[in-house]
Amino acid sequence: MPSLDELPLRPELRGRSPYGAPQVPATHRLNTNENPYPLPAELLADLGAALGHAALELNRYPDRDAVALRTDLAAYLSRTSGEPVEPGQVWAANGSNEVLQQILQAFGGAGRTALGFTPSYSMHPIISGGTGTEWVDGHRRADFTIDAAAATAQVRDVSPDVVFVTSPNNPTGTAVALETIEAIYDATTGVVVVDEAYAEFARSGTPSALTLLPGRPRLIVSRTMSKAFGMAGLRLGYLAADPAVVDALQLVRLPYHLSSLTQAAARAALAHTDALLATVDAVKAQRDRIVAALPVMGLTSVPSDANFVLFGHFTDAPATWQALLDRGVLVRDVGLPGWLRVTAGTPAETDAFLTALGEVAATSRSTGGESGA
Amino acid sequence: MPSLDELPLRPELRGRSPYGAPQVPATHRLNTNENPYPLPAELLADLGAALGHAALELNRYPDRDAVALRTDLAAYLSRTSGEPVEPGQVWAANGSNEVLQQILQAFGGAGRTALGFTPSYSMHPIISGGTGTEWVDGHRRADFTIDAAAATAQVRDVSPDVVFVTSPNNPTGTAVALETIEAIYDATTGVVVVDEAYAEFARSGTPSALTLLPGRPRLIVSRTMSKAFGMAGLRLGYLAADPAVVDALQLVRLPYHLSSLTQAAARAALAHTDALLATVDAVKAQRDRIVAALPVMGLTSVPSDANFVLFGHFTDAPATWQALLDRGVLVRDVGLPGWLRVTAGTPAETDAFLTALGEVAATSRSTGGESGA
Repeated sequence: MPSLDELPLRPELRGRSPYGAPQVPATHRLNTNENPYPLPAELLADLGAALGHAALELNRYPDRDAVALRTDLAAYLSRTSGEPVEPGQVWAANGSNEVLQQILQAFGGAGRTALGFTPSYSMHPIISGGTGTEWVDGHRRADFTIDAAAATAQVRDVSPDVVFVTSPNNPTGTAVALETIEAIYDATTGVVVVDEAYAEFARSGTPSALTLLPGRPRLIVSRTMSKAFGMAGLRLGYLAADPAVVDALQLVRLPYHLSSLTQAAARAALAHTDALLATVDAVKAQRDRIVAALPVMGLTSVPSDANFVLFGHFTDAPATWQALLDRGVLVRDVGLPGWLRVTAGTPAETDAFLTALGEVAATSRSTGGESGA
Repeated sequence: MPSLDELPLRPELRGRSPYGAPQVPATHRLNTNENPYPLPAELLADLGAALGHAALELNRYPDRDAVALRTDLAAYLSRTSGEPVEPGQVWAANGSNEVLQQILQAFGGAGRTALGFTPSYSMHPIISGGTGTEWVDGHRRADFTIDAAAATAQVRDVSPDVVFVTSPNNPTGTAVALETIEAIYDATTGVVVVDEAYAEFARSGTPSALTLLPGRPRLIVSRTMSKAFGMAGLRLGYLAADPAVVDALQLVRLPYHLSSLTQAAARAALAHTDALLATVDAVKAQRDRIVAALPVMGLTSVPSDANFVLFGHFTDAPATWQALLDRGVLVRDVGLPGWLRVTAGTPAETDAFLTALGEVAATSRSTGGESGA
C-alpha cells in the first residue's frame, strides 16, 4: 500500500495533519461552539417544504449568483446592524471558510502576505497556506486584546495584502473596538477582513464593523449561520463589503458553488430569524453564568462577547482537558498554555461543565503569577 | 462607487469575467448538459424524509469525513465498474469542481504545472489558475481525439505535476481509450486525473478508468452526481483513488465542507440508483437520434459518449447559436470555430432542437473543406 510520502504532494504539506477538533465521544460536547438548540418546530416545517420544493428541480443547476439568498441576507444585516446593506454587497459560500478562501484567492495567493493577530481563528493561517499566501502572526497584549498602536505599526511594517481581525475573537472571546479596526484599515493598502462569526453574541452596546463599511472599499465583514442561527450543519457563511469586492470574488468562486438545497434552507431559516435568534439570549445567559462561577473556583476568564469562554489558569491544561473529558465533558484545548475553551450550551450542559470543573479545579488550577488576563 | 480596478486584486485576475454559461431565458435550455428528468417520485419521498431527519440536528456540524456517504459512493462504483472500490479510496466535495480544486491545492499550486488536452472542460485551466498552478495546453488531433504517442511525448517534455484527461471529453464527447490513459500515466511522475463526469453515458463496452486504479497510486478518477444521477442542483462530486490520495486531500479540504443536507440527500439518491440511472438510456437514445439526424441536414458530429453532441460545421457558429436561440433553443457556443454543443434532453426537446436546426441548417452550414471530424 503506497503511503502519502510516495505521492508528489506539495512539500509544505508533508507531515501535516488534517485540521479539526478531535472527534471524541462525550456526553457533553462543548468543544466546537455549536448552538445547543435544535431548530424550532415552526422552522422545521417550513424548511421541509422549502427543501421539497427545491428537490423538484434538483436536476437543474442552482442559481449561480444566489441572488434571492443574498437579498435575504442583506435584509437581515440591514435590520440588525442599522447599516443599510444592499444585496450586491453580500456574497455567500459553503461556510465562512469558503468565503475566506475566496477572499485569499482574489487578494492573497502566491507572493502575497496575510497577517492576523494570533491567537485567533486557526483556519485563517491554514486557509492562507492552502492558497499559497504567506502568513505573518500579529501581536496581541498579554490579556489577548489588540493594542491599536502596536497593530498599526506592525501592519505598516509588514505591509500585508490581507489583514484578519476576528471580532469577537476566537478562541479568546473579546470583541475588538471599532477604533482599532479603523486604525488598522488606515494603516494598510490591503483588504481588511473582520471575521464576525460570533457577532450576535456580543455584549450589548458592541457595534458591528458593518457600520464601518461606507467609504471603506477594502473592508470585508464575514458572518456565518453556524453559530447564532444554530445551523452549523448547513454550512452557510457570508460577507458584506463594497460591491466591487463581490465582483472580485466572482472571478475566483467555483461556478454553482452553493447547492439549491443550501440556498433554499438558508432562506427558510432567514424567514424565521427572530425565532432562531431567541436562542442567543439563552446562550449568553449560560456564558455569563460560567464567567460568574469561575472566580468561586479560583479560576478566571477572558471577557467574552461570544458563545464560549476561555478559562484558566491551569498548571497543565491538557491534563485538565482530559480530567473534564473523563467526567463526560468535552471542551477544547486551543493550545494556549494554561487555558481551555468551553462552549456555552444549555443550562444542563453548564451544570455538567461546572460540576466537573468544580471537581478538578482545586487540583488543576495554577496559583502562580500568570494572571495575565 | 469604487470599481474593481481600485481594489488590490491579484494582477492575473484583472480584466477577467466570471466563468459560466450565459444565463439566457429560453424555452429549451440545452446548454449546460443537465439531465432533463426530475427526480422520480419514490426518491422525492425518501429525500424529504432524509432531509427532515438531517434538519433535526442541523445545529451540529456535519460528519467532517462524510464516512457514510463515501461508503455508499464506493458501493456504487464497485457495483457499476466491476472494480472493487473501498470507502477509504473515495472522497467527495461540493461538485467535482471542488474535488478538482482540492487536487490542485495538494498536488499543483504555485511553482507547479498542470496539463490538459484542450479543447476540454474549461474549468480545468480556470481552477488551475485559481490555485496558482501554471496551465499548459495539451495537443489533440483535428478530430479531437488524443494521439497517445504525441500526448506522452508532450507530457515527458512538459513534466507536469497534474495531468487532466477528460473521458468522455467535454465539449467534444468522445471517451479516451484506456491504453492512452495508461501511456500518459507511465509518462509522468505527477498525478493523472481522469475526469469521468459523463462516464455513465458512454457507449456500451466503454470501460471506466476505475479499472486502472490497482497499482497506480497517482491515478485519480473523478465523477459527479450532476449528470447521470440528475442532481446538478445538489453539487456532489467525488473521486476514487489510492487511499493515500484521500489522505492528501484531507490536508487541504476546508473542515466540514460538505453540509449535513448534502450528505443526506446524496445518500438518499444513491439508495435509488437504479431508478435514477433509468434516465440514462432515455437520454442516450435522444443523443443517438440527434447524431443520426445531422447528416440528413448536411451536418456532422463528433462521436459522443456523453449526454451532449458537438455538431457542425457552420460558417458562423455564433450566428447559428443566435438563430437557434431566436427559435427558443439555447445551445452552447464553446468557442470552437464551426461547432456548437447541444445537450441531449427529452424527446420533446430533441424535436424542438431538430426542428429549429432544420430551419437554420441550410443557410448556416459550412460546405467547405473543414471536415476535420
